[in-house]
Amino acid sequence: MKFDILTLFPAMFEGPMTESILKRASDKGLIEVGLHNIRDWAFDKHATADDSPYGGGAGMVMKVEPIAGAIEAVKKMRPASRVILTTPGGRPFTHQVAEELSREEGLVIICGRYEGVDERVRALFVDDEISLGDFVLTGGELAAMVVVDAVSRLVPGVLGSEESAQYDSFADGLLEYPQYTRPPEFRGEKVPDILLSGNHAEIAKWRRKEQIRRTLASRPELLEGIEWSKQDKKLLKELGLDADLKAKRRDVSAEALAKVEGGTA
Amino acid sequence: MKFDILTLFPAMFEGPMTESILKRASDKGLIEVGLHNIRDWAFDKHATADDSPYGGGAGMVMKVEPIAGAIEAVKKMRPASRVILTTPGGRPFTHQVAEELSREEGLVIICGRYEGVDERVRALFVDDEISLGDFVLTGGELAAMVVVDAVSRLVPGVLGSEESAQYDSFADGLLEYPQYTRPPEFRGEKVPDILLSGNHAEIAKWRRKEQIRRTLASRPELLEGIEWSKQDKKLLKELGLDADLKAKRRDVSAEALAKVEGGTA
Repeated sequence: MKFDILTLFPAMFEGPMTESILKRASDKGLIEVGLHNIRDWAFDKHATADDSPYGGGAGMVMKVEPIAGAIEAVKKMRPASRVILTTPGGRPFTHQVAEELSREEGLVIICGRYEGVDERVRALFVDDEISLGDFVLTGGELAAMVVVDAVSRLVPGVLGSEESAQYDSFADGLLEYPQYTRPPEFRGEKVPDILLSGNHAEIAKWRRKEQIRRTLASRPELLEGIEWSKQDKKLLKELGLDADLKAKRRDVSAEALAKVEGGTA
Repeated sequence: MKFDILTLFPAMFEGPMTESILKRASDKGLIEVGLHNIRDWAFDKHATADDSPYGGGAGMVMKVEPIAGAIEAVKKMRPASRVILTTPGGRPFTHQVAEELSREEGLVIICGRYEGVDERVRALFVDDEISLGDFVLTGGELAAMVVVDAVSRLVPGVLGSEESAQYDSFADGLLEYPQYTRPPEFRGEKVPDILLSGNHAEIAKWRRKEQIRRTLASRPELLEGIEWSKQDKKLLKELGLDADLKAKRRDVSAEALAKVEGGTA
């Protein structure tokens, strides 16, 4: 997977792209991140990449020509790459979108700055608009890093089996179960006995139940459309729910559930 | 505003935190970002910050003691800081959450890695859990950078008047209008005439209409609860809608609207 990042601030990527899993993936040749300074395609003597908006108003707008030049240079090498603009009006970035993007040959990500990019960039070059969420960032650089990170870890071989993405939140549609490591007690807070029991079947059951309980408490909408196994249905019952979760769910608040469950143990 | 970032990878923050607006805000003393390596509070001879999960399973879990040590050291200096964990189960990060956080004296952000942090960190120290979205990142570092960026720009004085946050998406509940800068024509794509007209009242009207049109096309749920001015109601009518948007909206697809509007001009 080849990522081409078009930015006015390539130095921003130095730390994030040189650490940990991304670094290893790139050393192994599984991903490659090309940083392209948009200013290199600004051909006037001041290398101008932005200008005042037509119609007036505060701030600056990123000019279409330098971005066009950068995109075309990159597409000449990798014509199949999908061109992405991160923008608040785009489709929400989710695990599913990351999976979809991980199957592309390459991604070109345009990092907007200031008051945004000239509308004609969108009209002429952009294949996909993605939103990270309903908040505003100073520029698209952090959004691009998030996309590179979330997509890379779904590229086959990037994660070792020890850190396999199949255990991640959302991979099975539920939030993760709580994790504990040594010591067994810290300031009065104990690791649940079950996790120290060595009974793997019971541990698996407890973890699955915790996943359902947590998802129900903080993200109930994620449970829509999940196919419950027979075992799951038993767990739901233990949680004070019947298998027809949809009908019952609205009546079960996080507090009520906490009472039913009596904490995590 | 003081940010204290607790991380195993402080070097990741080098690029992002030293560029552009954040750099200037920090030079002006408006924000301060302290990077704390969690490993500095791991007191065994190998400086162990992670360990295998109780109950078995892949990966490593971040130990509670080093994180506890780091939090307590930071809180000794800034007891009023709010302690945040970024996690998929947290409340969604939005412009409103960023505004709320920008009014805090300080934020302590714990960056999780691997299979997450020991559950007792959450139980004993965390004030606020925040989710960046329904996707999985290699670690909490990028999420922390996003929070620092989005919150900083709402701290009074960080943005100059030229780049005021009041023009951002979401500040008035709508997406932004399209922006154009020179040249007036690029590969057959022209800047809408109205923007070259010099008629500021008409330009303002056109922009507002575009904001409504775009929001309706890609993020209709943002329009819920907006108080429409008399002027807005006129624009809605021109967009083929009546003021009772809620009732009508469901019938108006993005395609239908594009037809009504005939593009952007």
